[in-house]
Amino acid sequence: MVIIFRRDATEEQIQGAVRKIESLGYTPHLSRGTVKSICGVTGDDRSISESEFDQLPGVETVLRVLKPYKLASREFHPESTRVQVGGVTIGPGTFSVIAGPCSAETEEQVESTAAFVAGLGLKLLRGGAFKPRSSPYSFQGLGEQGLEMLNAAARRHGLTVVTEIMSEHDVELVGRYTGVFQVGARNMQNFALLKALGETRTPVLLKRSMMGTIEEMLLSAEYVMKGGNPHVILCERGIRTFETQTRNTLDIAAVPVTKRLSHLPILVDPSHAMGDWHYVAPASLAALAAGADGILVEIHPDPASAKSDGKQSLNFGHFQELMGRLRDLAPHMGVAVH
Amino acid sequence: MVIIFRRDATEEQIQGAVRKIESLGYTPHLSRGTVKSICGVTGDDRSISESEFDQLPGVETVLRVLKPYKLASREFHPESTRVQVGGVTIGPGTFSVIAGPCSAETEEQVESTAAFVAGLGLKLLRGGAFKPRSSPYSFQGLGEQGLEMLNAAARRHGLTVVTEIMSEHDVELVGRYTGVFQVGARNMQNFALLKALGETRTPVLLKRSMMGTIEEMLLSAEYVMKGGNPHVILCERGIRTFETQTRNTLDIAAVPVTKRLSHLPILVDPSHAMGDWHYVAPASLAALAAGADGILVEIHPDPASAKSDGKQSLNFGHFQELMGRLRDLAPHMGVAVH
Amino acid sequence: MVIIFRRDATEEQIQGAVRKIESLGYTPHLSRGTVKSICGVTGDDRSISESEFDQLPGVETVLRVLKPYKLASREFHPESTRVQVGGVTIGPGTFSVIAGPCSAETEEQVESTAAFVAGLGLKLLRGGAFKPRSSPYSFQGLGEQGLEMLNAAARRHGLTVVTEIMSEHDVELVGRYTGVFQVGARNMQNFALLKALGETRTPVLLKRSMMGTIEEMLLSAEYVMKGGNPHVILCERGIRTFETQTRNTLDIAAVPVTKRLSHLPILVDPSHAMGDWHYVAPASLAALAAGADGILVEIHPDPASAKSDGKQSLNFGHFQELMGRLRDLAPHMGVAVH
Amino acid sequence: MVIIFRRDATEEQIQGAVRKIESLGYTPHLSRGTVKSICGVTGDDRSISESEFDQLPGVETVLRVLKPYKLASREFHPESTRVQVGGVTIGPGTFSVIAGPCSAETEEQVESTAAFVAGLGLKLLRGGAFKPRSSPYSFQGLGEQGLEMLNAAARRHGLTVVTEIMSEHDVELVGRYTGVFQVGARNMQNFALLKALGETRTPVLLKRSMMGTIEEMLLSAEYVMKGGNPHVILCERGIRTFETQTRNTLDIAAVPVTKRLSHLPILVDPSHAMGDWHYVAPASLAALAAGADGILVEIHPDPASAKSDGKQSLNFGHFQELMGRLRDLAPHMGVAVH
Repeated sequence: MVIIFRRDATEEQIQGAVRKIESLGYTPHLSRGTVKSICGVTGDDRSISESEFDQLPGVETVLRVLKPYKLASREFHPESTRVQVGGVTIGPGTFSVIAGPCSAETEEQVESTAAFVAGLGLKLLRGGAFKPRSSPYSFQGLGEQGLEMLNAAARRHGLTVVTEIMSEHDVELVGRYTGVFQVGARNMQNFALLKALGETRTPVLLKRSMMGTIEEMLLSAEYVMKGGNPHVILCERGIRTFETQTRNTLDIAAVPVTKRLSHLPILVDPSHAMGDWHYVAPASLAALAAGADGILVEIHPDPASAKSDGKQSLNFGHFQELMGRLRDLAPHMGVAVH
Repeated sequence: MVIIFRRDATEEQIQGAVRKIESLGYTPHLSRGTVKSICGVTGDDRSISESEFDQLPGVETVLRVLKPYKLASREFHPESTRVQVGGVTIGPGTFSVIAGPCSAETEEQVESTAAFVAGLGLKLLRGGAFKPRSSPYSFQGLGEQGLEMLNAAARRHGLTVVTEIMSEHDVELVGRYTGVFQVGARNMQNFALLKALGETRTPVLLKRSMMGTIEEMLLSAEYVMKGGNPHVILCERGIRTFETQTRNTLDIAAVPVTKRLSHLPILVDPSHAMGDWHYVAPASLAALAAGADGILVEIHPDPASAKSDGKQSLNFGHFQELMGRLRDLAPHMGVAVH
Repeated sequence: MVIIFRRDATEEQIQGAVRKIESLGYTPHLSRGTVKSICGVTGDDRSISESEFDQLPGVETVLRVLKPYKLASREFHPESTRVQVGGVTIGPGTFSVIAGPCSAETEEQVESTAAFVAGLGLKLLRGGAFKPRSSPYSFQGLGEQGLEMLNAAARRHGLTVVTEIMSEHDVELVGRYTGVFQVGARNMQNFALLKALGETRTPVLLKRSMMGTIEEMLLSAEYVMKGGNPHVILCERGIRTFETQTRNTLDIAAVPVTKRLSHLPILVDPSHAMGDWHYVAPASLAALAAGADGILVEIHPDPASAKSDGKQSLNFGHFQELMGRLRDLAPHMGVAVH
Repeated sequence: MVIIFRRDATEEQIQGAVRKIESLGYTPHLSRGTVKSICGVTGDDRSISESEFDQLPGVETVLRVLKPYKLASREFHPESTRVQVGGVTIGPGTFSVIAGPCSAETEEQVESTAAFVAGLGLKLLRGGAFKPRSSPYSFQGLGEQGLEMLNAAARRHGLTVVTEIMSEHDVELVGRYTGVFQVGARNMQNFALLKALGETRTPVLLKRSMMGTIEEMLLSAEYVMKGGNPHVILCERGIRTFETQTRNTLDIAAVPVTKRLSHLPILVDPSHAMGDWHYVAPASLAALAAGADGILVEIHPDPASAKSDGKQSLNFGHFQELMGRLRDLAPHMGVAVH
């Protein structure tokens, strides 16, 4: 931690801060500037709160030196993590395409989608049964019935289900049907849910919130990992900005930034980021080129009849075309698509 | 709903959309422009999804005409709502000051704060026992013990507690100790929680998310009201922007905008919006002048020793001074402070 | 400046940075942490570029200690500045209401507005002749003819004109007609214009850009002041965020933040911030309550017929009502309205 | 245009709007809803201002149907535009890499960079002589001397210069040395400059502002094109958001969105978007994969000694490596790198 004193800080105020640092068991390193003085604080400062200092008289600002997360940090864990899901690995060397409908709607829709996904050689089926919707008047998902549909279709076609969990009390229920717990953007800071998932050993796909910084996403991963579950997969899905041409703004830089700060794999969700199927293919190719470990993409046999997110869902033809392009580029990025 | 057709839409595509509108039981009103055609759809379109149309060939955009919320809307409920909390009313004619610590920390801190708040003639005591914190290494609140402290101190001083609830499964527990369920910004779209609170009849103080639009805040209120609980109080607490001088950017316009769109009362939380006590008084006075129904403000007997949010907490002296200024301005805004 | 080294920085890398600091004539103060080392650099670091260090091997981050502006800073100039405009003062103790049309359109409109403004006891008339418009198909202002209209009407009624200048080459032309050069939000970082205005001694009203930080606004003021013109008035006019209910998001906190960082006066432009006349009065009252030195407000005898910004212009009746409310509150804020 | 009436609009108010539409020479198409009425307005509505209607009593909202730009629009010009610069083409089928220093600093730096760029088979040399800097204390560029250096080095190596112009009065001066006028992000809405460039026939590289929407960027292109200069190249360079890990947030979706809305070529500037050279290569590859027509990238023989933007400049080795990767992927994207 570094404390920067005000230009008009008195000697007494500076010494007061120095004594407080010492009283907390840390070592102060004071430097007198011609304009301002600064004081380095050494020791692991993750457990000190800035607010213990920034309120002291004479103090202008307090800066943190260490990153606030540790288990998720590449600094303390240089090797990239690979997460096993069903028979496949998510992480370096692979590009995982997790496809499926926004919501499970009917047996036929889920079955035809699962068959199509498996037919393309993919292994992971996404699909929602509990849907977070801004409006209480929108379709809220089929609940357990949807989970059953997804799970049954996945088993028939040798796929693993990836589905969203919205409450810590559904861990047991959702866990019976899914291979990966997906934490949606609106729940990135639902700490009760994160703690509950930390007690399982099932992989967690943690989506960045529309308003979450990359650091906050890593802190949310830290909640899960601190509970004992190291199997965390991150996912960039667009942040909220002033631009309205797309549903969200895909922060493609989140891929290399996260790779540098953390050892965890990171996927991209081009469907929610774009909100319009026309842009899903370019965004998917950009994700691959930027070094993402995969994508999470919405597809539907008939997007115009989808009960949710039809506008951003690829139909089967467009998805097949995208798969062809991903498979064409992948070897040049050093990864195998699955 | 209004459908705008692409410039190159064919007659067949236009007729396809018209037939789809009719098949859903609505009435199409087609206008042929020299450049583009548009089609109005009449009937209550809250239950139609835009995505049933924006995917149709030839369609460029689909615009909603009706607001997506109804129970929270002033359009359908012109008279302003007053919410009873303890012995006081939140709503037009009053300016409610809800003060207290960020977190309940010790008996002494809670007691001295409650005594101070009551001594100033206020009736509502805020304080957290379950704290949502970005980092798992930060203080997480005292839990039920904190609730007990707050409730006991409040009873001793004739105050009503306002405290945060973080999970739908704490409704019974938190409900034993509080007069108002506070839904924090990170939970504005925790729909499981909103639904659970809709089943109670306890007032709900719903804070706007850092990245929530005003419309989304009203839709979240709609979740609670649709469940049968009409006692919703809204709260603007700053949104996330690029500016870093303050913790968040207080969207002061949210006050008159919400008043125009909705009949529900709206408070301002200057403490979380500013993140720095120096700016809390000007923000509080601005809230009063903009027409807010009150403020939710963090105070602490010794901010420098606070376990959370010390930087943004007013000490007792500064809070007393603020109360003096609010009481001086209030009659000119036509409201009584309590 | 503070340099934070990477956890894995070698001794050689650290010594390399220390030597570079010394070679530039500054004094390094190295602190060895158990996890990371940090190095304070003392001396006036405004002239060192962070990039001289953040590229060195072993360096993680470089933090600036001094604020990058000096002439605009309250730290170096504790007393608040008052700017003389026409016969009045903008700054502490006063609340300046600068009213007038978005654009000068016709003799009648300008004359009736000037008469109305003067009749309310105000002294400053705003009005645009050169209009920055996003679309080339929108009304671009009357140019010099508009300046003449504004100036003539102002003289008839004892007012001073405040008008926008869009190019450094119009300084002489616009200067003939105006008492204050207004720099619009889109030109906050038009450095050629700022430098040209720095060579005059006419007051400059500098509006914050829609995406400008408060620090950047102060740096733009620094450009003008460094050129020799100390008469700078700042203006918060709303920043761009994701919220669409208002044209921009009024950052009301910019008022107390700027007051704390700088000695320059700061106004609020509620018209551009809101974009809708319904919200202009509450935003104006909030500006007064937050401590602003005045407002810049658009009025029009017949807003529905305005050639630009009609939606956000107050008609005379609503403006008169607002003036009454401002005059009622002003004494309680310790200011006189003019 | 579509007018949506308030729920409580009276028949008289509705008829008033209808008469106003007719009086302006347009055709109203009124649809009576059970809740609200709407009125389509046909005719080219680019020249009607929404504010002529949204101020009328009884009107809730006015929606535009036509896009506000025309010359830049793909709707009116379906075929993609190719811009000739020096001996090369920017547009479909090619991927243009425009590389060079942030600022021209010394003869040696410019010469070595030009030689390196030419040696890699590239044709376009970027470099700044007039630098827009937030702080007046930062290096402001070498001015005409810098232009001479860039131009001389470019001629020696068969390259064409791309350099920034900051004022409409430098058109003649800068035009003597450059093959492309670059309009920086801060000048995207410097309309005086855009109009001046519209009078030339030299290609204009128009960078999106940090705060500019894609639509506003296209409107700024429209300013240049309306003046008679059709040779506009767009450039996405990152927008300002709350995320601080990168200097700006690269809106990669701007590439396919712009391609769909407009026929103009679009480049990406990964250097300013990222602000950190570590992320420049992934962002460049993402740009290629997303369909951009090229990149504008900062390189420096010794980034640590650069006078500006050293942190985001690639050194020659890293740039050569990036070129190898781009050339490897390009054929799979159907483009040739030059």
